Amino acid sequence: MAQYSTTLDDAFQALADPTRRAVLSRLGTGPASISELAGPFDMALPSFMKHIRLLEKSGWIRTRKVGRVRTCTLDTASYAAVENWLLTQRDVWEGRTDRLETFAASIRIEEKEL
Amino acid sequence: MAQYSTTLDDAFQALADPTRRAVLSRLGTGPASISELAGPFDMALPSFMKHIRLLEKSGWIRTRKVGRVRTCTLDTASYAAVENWLLTQRDVWEGRTDRLETFAASIRIEEKEL
Repeated sequence: MAQYSTTLDDAFQALADPTRRAVLSRLGTGPASISELAGPFDMALPSFMKHIRLLEKSGWIRTRKVGRVRTCTLDTASYAAVENWLLTQRDVWEGRTDRLETFAASIRIEEKEL
Repeated sequence: MAQYSTTLDDAFQALADPTRRAVLSRLGTGPASISELAGPFDMALPSFMKHIRLLEKSGWIRTRKVGRVRTCTLDTASYAAVENWLLTQRDVWEGRTDRLETFAASIRIEEKEL
């Protein structure tokens, strides 16, 4: 449970930055090298690499170096964890809304019967 | 666009903490006072209030003080923004997977025809 919680902390933290979200969006269309990924950003390479390392550490991407080129690939495991948390929340508050609607409907029926 | 990006930064940042996620889960079941929300946490009230303020600032909750009691309510606007971003990502990489499958299928058909 603690590990699951830490994973979610890292997964959400990784998404709290526009550069990292843009990198993930780009990788959604297929693998890319670091230089391809860094291209659109007006950022020094060491700063960009911090984002890449954070995405790798938090499980959003995998990287692999062949020769002098490091290629990044999207890893959808973190996506699944994040989506699962969000869907669970929705189930809770939609369940509550459904219960409130059932309750309101039952009151309307009772009122009609009076 | 910049504002949308900042909103998403704040929305995801708010989720990168187990206390804040637990507060949101609790509020999914209905509104609660600060003291009710703080109850399960072994945390000084000023520290807990920092979490509450961050959740309010990032649009996840609304708070209202009546007399001496501040009540918190879930606000699902941030949920919609976060969900929208995630679904867009999924569309991109599932679209890509579909295209790859179509391509692989077309190759299999061509191979059969040879």
